[in-house]
Amino acid sequence: MLDYTKLDKILYGGDYNPEQWPEETWPEDMRMFRLAGIDILTLNVFSWAAIQPSEDCYDFSRLDRIVELAEKNGIRICMATSTGAHPAWMAMRHPDILRTDEHGIRRKFGSRHNSCPNSPTYLKYGPALAGALAQHYRGRESIVAWHISNEYSGECYCENCEKAFRDWLKEKYGTIEAVNAAWDTAFWGHTFYGFEEIVVPDYRSEMFEGGRTTFQGISLDYRRFMSDSMLRECLLEADEIRSAVPDAVITTNFMALYKGLDYAKWAKHLDVVALDCYPSNGDPWTRTSMTHDQMRGLKNGDPYMLMEQTPSVTNWQPYNALKRPGVLRLLSWQAVAHGADTVMFFQMKQSIGACEKYHGAVISHAGSEDTRVFREIAALGTELKDLGARTLGSRTAASAAVLFDWDNWWAIENSAGPSTDIRYLTEVGRMYSALRSMNYDVDLVAPDQPLDTYRLVCAPLWYMVKGRDDENVRRYVAGGGTFVTSFFSGIVQENDLVTTGGYPGKLRDILGIWVEENDALPSGSQNSFRYGGREYPAGILCDILHLRGAQQIDEGGYTGDFYKGSPVVTVNHFGKGRAYYIATASGPEFYRSFLGDLCREQGMEPVMEVPADVEATCRRKEGARFVFLLNHKAEAVKVRIPWDCAELLKGGTYPAGSEIGLAGYDVRIFEIPDGSAGCQQV
Amino acid sequence: MLDYTKLDKILYGGDYNPEQWPEETWPEDMRMFRLAGIDILTLNVFSWAAIQPSEDCYDFSRLDRIVELAEKNGIRICMATSTGAHPAWMAMRHPDILRTDEHGIRRKFGSRHNSCPNSPTYLKYGPALAGALAQHYRGRESIVAWHISNEYSGECYCENCEKAFRDWLKEKYGTIEAVNAAWDTAFWGHTFYGFEEIVVPDYRSEMFEGGRTTFQGISLDYRRFMSDSMLRECLLEADEIRSAVPDAVITTNFMALYKGLDYAKWAKHLDVVALDCYPSNGDPWTRTSMTHDQMRGLKNGDPYMLMEQTPSVTNWQPYNALKRPGVLRLLSWQAVAHGADTVMFFQMKQSIGACEKYHGAVISHAGSEDTRVFREIAALGTELKDLGARTLGSRTAASAAVLFDWDNWWAIENSAGPSTDIRYLTEVGRMYSALRSMNYDVDLVAPDQPLDTYRLVCAPLWYMVKGRDDENVRRYVAGGGTFVTSFFSGIVQENDLVTTGGYPGKLRDILGIWVEENDALPSGSQNSFRYGGREYPAGILCDILHLRGAQQIDEGGYTGDFYKGSPVVTVNHFGKGRAYYIATASGPEFYRSFLGDLCREQGMEPVMEVPADVEATCRRKEGARFVFLLNHKAEAVKVRIPWDCAELLKGGTYPAGSEIGLAGYDVRIFEIPDGSAGCQQV
Amino acid sequence: MLDYTKLDKILYGGDYNPEQWPEETWPEDMRMFRLAGIDILTLNVFSWAAIQPSEDCYDFSRLDRIVELAEKNGIRICMATSTGAHPAWMAMRHPDILRTDEHGIRRKFGSRHNSCPNSPTYLKYGPALAGALAQHYRGRESIVAWHISNEYSGECYCENCEKAFRDWLKEKYGTIEAVNAAWDTAFWGHTFYGFEEIVVPDYRSEMFEGGRTTFQGISLDYRRFMSDSMLRECLLEADEIRSAVPDAVITTNFMALYKGLDYAKWAKHLDVVALDCYPSNGDPWTRTSMTHDQMRGLKNGDPYMLMEQTPSVTNWQPYNALKRPGVLRLLSWQAVAHGADTVMFFQMKQSIGACEKYHGAVISHAGSEDTRVFREIAALGTELKDLGARTLGSRTAASAAVLFDWDNWWAIENSAGPSTDIRYLTEVGRMYSALRSMNYDVDLVAPDQPLDTYRLVCAPLWYMVKGRDDENVRRYVAGGGTFVTSFFSGIVQENDLVTTGGYPGKLRDILGIWVEENDALPSGSQNSFRYGGREYPAGILCDILHLRGAQQIDEGGYTGDFYKGSPVVTVNHFGKGRAYYIATASGPEFYRSFLGDLCREQGMEPVMEVPADVEATCRRKEGARFVFLLNHKAEAVKVRIPWDCAELLKGGTYPAGSEIGLAGYDVRIFEIPDGSAGCQQV
Repeated sequence: MLDYTKLDKILYGGDYNPEQWPEETWPEDMRMFRLAGIDILTLNVFSWAAIQPSEDCYDFSRLDRIVELAEKNGIRICMATSTGAHPAWMAMRHPDILRTDEHGIRRKFGSRHNSCPNSPTYLKYGPALAGALAQHYRGRESIVAWHISNEYSGECYCENCEKAFRDWLKEKYGTIEAVNAAWDTAFWGHTFYGFEEIVVPDYRSEMFEGGRTTFQGISLDYRRFMSDSMLRECLLEADEIRSAVPDAVITTNFMALYKGLDYAKWAKHLDVVALDCYPSNGDPWTRTSMTHDQMRGLKNGDPYMLMEQTPSVTNWQPYNALKRPGVLRLLSWQAVAHGADTVMFFQMKQSIGACEKYHGAVISHAGSEDTRVFREIAALGTELKDLGARTLGSRTAASAAVLFDWDNWWAIENSAGPSTDIRYLTEVGRMYSALRSMNYDVDLVAPDQPLDTYRLVCAPLWYMVKGRDDENVRRYVAGGGTFVTSFFSGIVQENDLVTTGGYPGKLRDILGIWVEENDALPSGSQNSFRYGGREYPAGILCDILHLRGAQQIDEGGYTGDFYKGSPVVTVNHFGKGRAYYIATASGPEFYRSFLGDLCREQGMEPVMEVPADVEATCRRKEGARFVFLLNHKAEAVKVRIPWDCAELLKGGTYPAGSEIGLAGYDVRIFEIPDGSAGCQQV
Repeated sequence: MLDYTKLDKILYGGDYNPEQWPEETWPEDMRMFRLAGIDILTLNVFSWAAIQPSEDCYDFSRLDRIVELAEKNGIRICMATSTGAHPAWMAMRHPDILRTDEHGIRRKFGSRHNSCPNSPTYLKYGPALAGALAQHYRGRESIVAWHISNEYSGECYCENCEKAFRDWLKEKYGTIEAVNAAWDTAFWGHTFYGFEEIVVPDYRSEMFEGGRTTFQGISLDYRRFMSDSMLRECLLEADEIRSAVPDAVITTNFMALYKGLDYAKWAKHLDVVALDCYPSNGDPWTRTSMTHDQMRGLKNGDPYMLMEQTPSVTNWQPYNALKRPGVLRLLSWQAVAHGADTVMFFQMKQSIGACEKYHGAVISHAGSEDTRVFREIAALGTELKDLGARTLGSRTAASAAVLFDWDNWWAIENSAGPSTDIRYLTEVGRMYSALRSMNYDVDLVAPDQPLDTYRLVCAPLWYMVKGRDDENVRRYVAGGGTFVTSFFSGIVQENDLVTTGGYPGKLRDILGIWVEENDALPSGSQNSFRYGGREYPAGILCDILHLRGAQQIDEGGYTGDFYKGSPVVTVNHFGKGRAYYIATASGPEFYRSFLGDLCREQGMEPVMEVPADVEATCRRKEGARFVFLLNHKAEAVKVRIPWDCAELLKGGTYPAGSEIGLAGYDVRIFEIPDGSAGCQQV
Repeated sequence: MLDYTKLDKILYGGDYNPEQWPEETWPEDMRMFRLAGIDILTLNVFSWAAIQPSEDCYDFSRLDRIVELAEKNGIRICMATSTGAHPAWMAMRHPDILRTDEHGIRRKFGSRHNSCPNSPTYLKYGPALAGALAQHYRGRESIVAWHISNEYSGECYCENCEKAFRDWLKEKYGTIEAVNAAWDTAFWGHTFYGFEEIVVPDYRSEMFEGGRTTFQGISLDYRRFMSDSMLRECLLEADEIRSAVPDAVITTNFMALYKGLDYAKWAKHLDVVALDCYPSNGDPWTRTSMTHDQMRGLKNGDPYMLMEQTPSVTNWQPYNALKRPGVLRLLSWQAVAHGADTVMFFQMKQSIGACEKYHGAVISHAGSEDTRVFREIAALGTELKDLGARTLGSRTAASAAVLFDWDNWWAIENSAGPSTDIRYLTEVGRMYSALRSMNYDVDLVAPDQPLDTYRLVCAPLWYMVKGRDDENVRRYVAGGGTFVTSFFSGIVQENDLVTTGGYPGKLRDILGIWVEENDALPSGSQNSFRYGGREYPAGILCDILHLRGAQQIDEGGYTGDFYKGSPVVTVNHFGKGRAYYIATASGPEFYRSFLGDLCREQGMEPVMEVPADVEATCRRKEGARFVFLLNHKAEAVKVRIPWDCAELLKGGTYPAGSEIGLAGYDVRIFEIPDGSAGCQQV
C-alpha cells in the first residue's frame, strides 16, 4: 500500500513528460498544475534513450532538474523506471532485445512494448537502469511510489523465449515424460523424447485462426510462461530498487481486464496495485465497476492507485468521443468509490507529435486554462483538496464474491469447441453486472482465496478447476455457503485435461448433477426456460443434465428442442449450504432475478435502494462508513437517504429518510459515523 | 474394393487410439464395443512418434498388444500407416520435413498435415514405416484394409517443392519454350529462359487476396503438382505395402468435396475409396448426397468405405451442435444408400486432451453406456448385424450424370474476373440438387468418362474443356444424348488459355450459340427470365448470346437491362441428341422445373414418388434392387410403395400400392426381387 | 505537352502487345485498327524479358518489326520503356531487384510492380534499357511520346531501401538532432543517436492494423521517400531518353486518385501527364470528373493524355459489369471535356492467358468486328476523325479551385485518432462534387499554387498546413478571395507536429475562430444543424469552436448534445475577402446549398443550366470556347442552349435559346466563337 503516514489527501496528477518540451516551458506547466490542484507527477516513463545514451553511461541531469522542479512546487513523484520502451541504439547493437511475433517475424525497432522478456540484453540493462535510478534518487522524500516499466503486455516467440520456455518446463515438470502426460501428447503423436524437441506454440506450429490452438496443453503453459517471464523481469527491477530503497513502494500499471498477464500472480509481488482505466465508448458502467473490483481483489481488498485515465478523449479507439461534461469527475469518483486512493491522468501535457498527440491531457495543445476540460480538472482538484484524508485507506466489505481466474480465461478461449461464442469475460460479466446493478458490493477473487466471509460466491463458467480449488468451494458450501456456477464448468483440471466420469467433474458431488451433453447454439438462435414465473432466453451452450441429488428450480426445463424439459437451474443441498447450477447462458433480467432471490434469501442488503443506473458503493474505516452515490446517466434522479449522515462533497448533513436530488452524472459521498441511525444497513 | 469374400455384414467401427490411455482401461473399451456391435477398428493413425523413437528403430510392441486385443475380441482391423503427422524428434533433426506456408514462413513442429510432400526425409521415412508395418503385420487375416496416412491435404511452398516443381514441369513440358507457351508468359513479360528461373506461385510471387492469382497457368500447374506430389508419396507407401502384402486392400481417407487434391486421379491408384463425412450445421441434405455420389463416381460406381463421421458433435466448427436423436442413424444409412459398404466413426473413445477432446465418440468422457448417444450407436449396431450381407456390393445404376472436374474447380476460382461470386461447387450443386431432390439417382463423373449409359448429362460451369473432352460430349450428343451446360463454359483449354473465335469455344458447334459478352451482376442485384410460364431470377453472370443454329426455349429472354430479350435457355439439335445452354445462374425452382422437363422427355423415372425432403435411392445386385428411403426432416410423412417388396430394417413385406408412415428422420430399406410387380420402374 | 504541330486530331488507340501473338496474326490486327480509326499504339509495355535476354544483350528485332508495321499503317507510337516488370532471369541472378513487403517478407519473381526502386540492379538496368531503346529508336517521327515504365506504385521495405532512406533523411535534415526534432522522438523515448539506428517503418516497427502508424513523423517521411525513390528511377530513365532524343515528350501513366505517389511532385518533371481511368461500378460520375480535373491541375492546366481505359469490362473488380451501350463514348468524351487530348485503351487485343484475359479490348477473343463493343469503338473513331484538331490544346478557365495535397492525404490517414472514418478523398469529394454537380468548372491544385485567378478556393480537411502555404491563402483572402475550409484543419505543420496555441493553428487569424474540442461520432450516429432554413446532418467529427472575430452563419449551431448551439458554419471578414469554416462533415445537399450561395455571391455562373446528372464543361482556345455536354444518366433530357453556337458531333448550328434533346448517355460539343451571343456567360 501507499504510505498513508505521508498522505493527507487523495493524490491528484499523472504522467508528465517534460522531456518532450523545451525547458523554458516547464514553469508555465507548474503554474497550470497549481491551478488544477495537482500534487503528484509520474516521471520518467519513456526516457530510457534519454538517460542512457550508451551501454556504460547514464545521464540523469535533465531528470534531476525535473525532479527538483516538482519538489520545489510541492509535488510528489511516482518514479517510473523507463523500461517500457528500449532505446533505438540498443535495438541496433543488441537485436536480441527485439521481439519475434506469432508468425515468426522478428520485429525492428519501433513502437513500445517492444522488449523480449527473455532477451539477455533486456534482462541485463532493464534491471541495471532501475538500480541506477534507485541509487541516484534514494532518499528523496518526494517519491511516493516506484513505477516499474509501463503496461507490461504482448508476447514474444523468439529463440531465446523458446529456450527459456524449455527451462521453465523443466523446472515445472522435471521430466519429459511428465510433460507428455500433462499435455496428453499421445494425441496426434506429439510425443516428445527430449525438451529440445519442444518449440514455441505460435502460428508456425499449434496456433490457428483467432488465436486458437490445436494443442491446449502447450499453449496454456506458454501463456503462463510468458506472464511469468515478464513478471521475472519486473521483479529483477524491483529487487534492484529495493536494495537501494528498502522501503520503496513498488507498483506497475495494470490494464483493465487484460487477458495476457496473470495479474493475480503478479499482485502478490507488488506493494500496491495500479490501474490504467480507459472505458471504451458505449461500455456499460458495470464493466468499469468490475475493472475496479478486480484491482481491489488482487491484493485482499487493499486500496489501489488509479494510475491513468484520460481527462477527455483517447486516441486509439476507432471513434474517440469526448467524455461528456461531468463524466471525468464521475469516473474519477467511481474509482475512489471502489477502492482507489489516487486519481491520476495520462497525460499532464499533450504531446505535439506521434501517436498519442490527440489523446486528451491536463494541458492541451491550446495551452489554455480557459477550456471546459481544464475547468473540470481544476474543479475536481478543489473537491479532492477539500475532501482531504477522510476516505484514505478505507476498505470495502463485500458479502458477495465472483471468482475470477486467468487460467480459466486462457483455457476456455483456447478451446477447439464447443462454441466460439463462449467468452470468459462475458460470462463473468453476466453475474457480476447483475449483482452490481442491484448495488451489492462484490469482490472479484481467485478460486483459491478464503471464501468464508462471503454469503454468496459465484463462479461463472468455471471451466477449469485447478488443484484443490474444488475443495475450497466444497468446504465453503459444506460450511453453509451459497455457491453458484454455470454451464461448461468443472470440465478440466489445471492442464486442460478432462476430468472423466461425467461432467461437471470434480464439482459433481457439490452440485448433485450429471451433465450428459452440451449443445452449442448457432449465433442468433436460442432456446428458453421459465424461472420465477417469467420466461428467459437460453443461448450459446445448453447443457443437458440429469439430477443426481439436486432439485430443479426452474419451471419445466428447456421449452424447446429434443431436450425440452431438461433442467436448467438446479440447487443441491450440500452440507449446510447450497450449490446452484445454471445450465445455459441467459439474459441480464434472469441473472438479476435469480441472484436477487439468492441475496434476499441470504439476508443481504444492497448498499442503498436507488433508481436504475445509479451506483452506490461503500468503503469503511475505523469509526465510519462512506457511501458513494454515482449517477451514471445524464438525467437527474431522486434518492432517499436511509441513515443519518454528512455529505462530503457539497457539504451538509442529512437525517435518515431525507430525499435528495442528484443531477445527471452527479456524485455524492455520505459519511455515516458508526452507531448513527440506519448505519447497520450498510 | 473390399474383399467381399471375407465380409458377412457392413463393417461397423472406427478410429481407435488406445495409446492415449492406460492399458488397464482397454478391456472396458472392448466390453463397450461388444455392446455396440463394433466389428472394425482403425488403428495406428497417429502413432509414428510412438512406434519409431528414432531413425533406425521401430517398436511395435504396444501396437502388437492392441492388434491382439482386437483379434481376441473378433474385431477386424483397418491398419493405418501413421504418416499423417511426423514425430517431433524428426522435425528437430530433419527440418526439411516441415512445410513452408504460402507466405514463405517455415513451420515449426506442431499440429498435423505437417509434412512437406517433397521432403527427402518424409519420402524416406514415410514409405519405410509403411513397409516395416506391412512386413510386421503381413498375414494377419484380421486386417481388411490398409489406410495410408490420414486426410492428405494442404500445400507446401518450400525450396524442395520449388525444385521438385521444376522437375515436374520438365517432365510435363520438356522444354522451357513449351512452358512459356502453355502459360502465355509473354503477358507481363514473364518469359523464362530456363527452368531454374521458375519459382513457386505463392503470396510472394503470383497470389493475391483470396488465394487468387495473377498468373493462372503457373498457379494451376502448381495445384496439379501439389496433388501429384502427395499422391506420389502415398503411392510410395502403397508400393511398400503391396510388396509385403500383395493382396492388400489399400485406401486413404478423402475429405468430402475437398478442393486441394484431384481425387479423380488419386482414386485410380487406390483399391477402395474412403470418405470422411462431416456435414456442417445447416448443410442441405442434398449436399451430403453429392458428397457420397462423388465418392462412388471416383471408381466407376464401386462401393466405398464411410471411414469417418461423428456420432454426436464435431469440435472444429464455430458452433458444434449435437446431432439430433435419429440423425446419426439417418446419416449412416444415407451413406449406405449411396454406395458405402462400411459405417465408421471418428472416434471410438474421446480423448481427454488436445484439440479434439470435445469431438464426439462412441465412448464419451463419461465412460458410460447409459447415454443417449451410446444407445443410438448400439441400436444401429444391432440393425447392421440384422441386415447382414444383403446389400453388400450392390451398385447404383444412375441414368443422369453430372460432370465434375478438379481442374475446372481450380481454374475458375483462380480467375481474375469476371466475378468473384462464381463458385464451382455452387454451380455444380444447382444442377445436382435439382435432380437429387426429385429423387433421380445421379453419378458424379469426370468429363473424360464414358457417357453412353446416361440419358442426361449435365456439365455445370464447364469453364475448362480439356484435351478431347469436348469430343467425348460431341459423340454422346450426336449419338442421341441429352446434354446441359451453363454460363461461362467452353472458355479455356487445359492450360487456362482462352479458345479464341468466340465463346463457348470448342462447344460452339454442339450448343449452336455464340456468347458475345458476359455481364457480371454485383452482389445482391439480379435480372430475370421466363421459362415454362414462370419467372425465374438470373444472377452472378449473364451471358449475352446469339443463336447460331440453336433455338431459344425460354420465353422472351432476359426481362431487363440493355440485353433485354437476349436468349437465356437454348437447345441445339446436334446429331441425334440435344444440347442445352443456360446463360445465367438461377434459383432452385428453375433447375427443378427445367431438368424435370428434360428427365420426363427422356422417360426417366425417379426412384420413388415421395414428399419433399424425403430421399429415395436405389442400389442393385444380382437378383434384387434395394431402395433406401430416408426422411431428412423432423416431421413424419406418408409414402406409397409402388412395388411388391420386403422391408429389411423393421421387417415385413408390402404389396405394391401400400402406404407406410415414416417418422421424422426415419429410414427404410426395401428389397425388390427382380421380376416382382413394379420392379421395372426402379 | 504533346507536340501539337504533329497532330491533326485527338489520338485514338492504346496498349498493343503483339508479342503475345503469332506474327502472322498482326496484319489482321491492323485491318481491325483501320476499321476502328486507330492512329496511336502504345508499344513495348511489358517486353523487358523479350528484348533483354541477359545482362549484356538487347534484341530489338521483333520490336523493330512491330514499329515498322505501325508506321506502315500510318499509326503513331507511344513507346514504353518496359521497366514496369523485370525479367525472371534478372530476379534469379540479382535478387536485390525483388521487393520486400511491409511484413519484411522478400518477394519472389512474379506479378508486376515488382522492382525495388532502390535496388542497384534496377537502377542500373532500368535506365540502361531506356537509354538503349532511345538510342535505337531516335529519329522516328512516328513516336509521339515516351512512356516510362508502367503505373509506378507500391512500396518496398528492404535493406537497400532502409539504407537509401537514411541517405534521404541525411540529405533532408542534415543532422540526427534535426530528425529527432522533426519526428518528436522524445515521445516514447525514440530518440536516435545516429542515422544507422533508423529502420523502415513497417509492420515490424511502427505500422499497425489498417496501415496506421505509431509514429507519424517517420511514416510520413517514408511515404515521401518512397514516392521520391520511384521518381528518381523514373527520372534516370528520362535522362537517358532525353540525352538520345532531346525533344522527347516524356510521360508515365498515373492511376486515378492514387494515394501512393505525390503526383504533384512527379508532374513537374514530366512533359505531359497521362491518366489510366477505370471508374469502379457504381462510382458517381463526379468522382471521375475529379480524377480528370486532378490530372489537368498537375501541370497548370495543360491538356493531358487519357492513356488507358477499358472499352467494355475490367477484370480486377469483384464484379466486372459491362459498360452499358454508349458509356464507352460518354466516358471518352468526358475525358476530353476535362482536358484530355488523347483517347486510349487498355488494351488493343485481348490476351488469351494470365490475369487480364477477361479485361475488355478493342479486338476481343472472338476476333470479330461484328460485336457491340467494336461497333461502338469504330463509331467513336469516326467521331474523333470528324472532329479533327478543333479542340486540341484548348484549356479550362475555372473560377473555382479545390486544394489537393498528397501530404495531407498521407498524414490524416496515418493519424491515430480522432476517428478512423476521416478519409481525405471523401472530404475533398464533398466540396468538389457539390461544385461539379452544379456545373462549375473546378481546378484541383496544390496549396502552394497561385490562387489569384480563382473567385472561390476550397481547402477541405486542410489538416496539414505546410511551410508558408497559410501565407498563400492569407494573401489570397486579404486580396479579396473567398476561402472555405472544414473541420480538423490547420492542426499540424509539415512534419505532422501540432501547431500549438489553439486550433486551427496557422489559420486562426484567417478564419477568426478557435476550435476548443473535436468530438468523434461513432459510425452511424449523427448530430445536425440548420443553414438557409433547412436542417442538415453533422457527422464524423464535430468541432466545438469559439468565435474570435468570425460570425456564425448557420442558424443556431448544433441541434444536439452538450455542445448544442455551438457554431457550425462561420465566416470571417479578413482583409478584402472572406474565410469560411465548416465545423463538421455534412451531406451533399448542404454543400450544394452552401457553396452555391458562395458562387452566386461571387457572381460565378455555371457553364450551363442543365438537368441533374448532366455535366457541362468548357475548354477555351484562341477565338472560341467549347462546351461539352454529357448526359450521365440513361434517361433522355432536354437542354436550353444559351449562346449562338455550332455543334461539332452531330453538326448543325443553334441560335441562343434553342432547346435540344439529349438521349441517355449522349454527348454534344458546342463551339461558341468569341463574340457570339451569350458567349460571355461561359
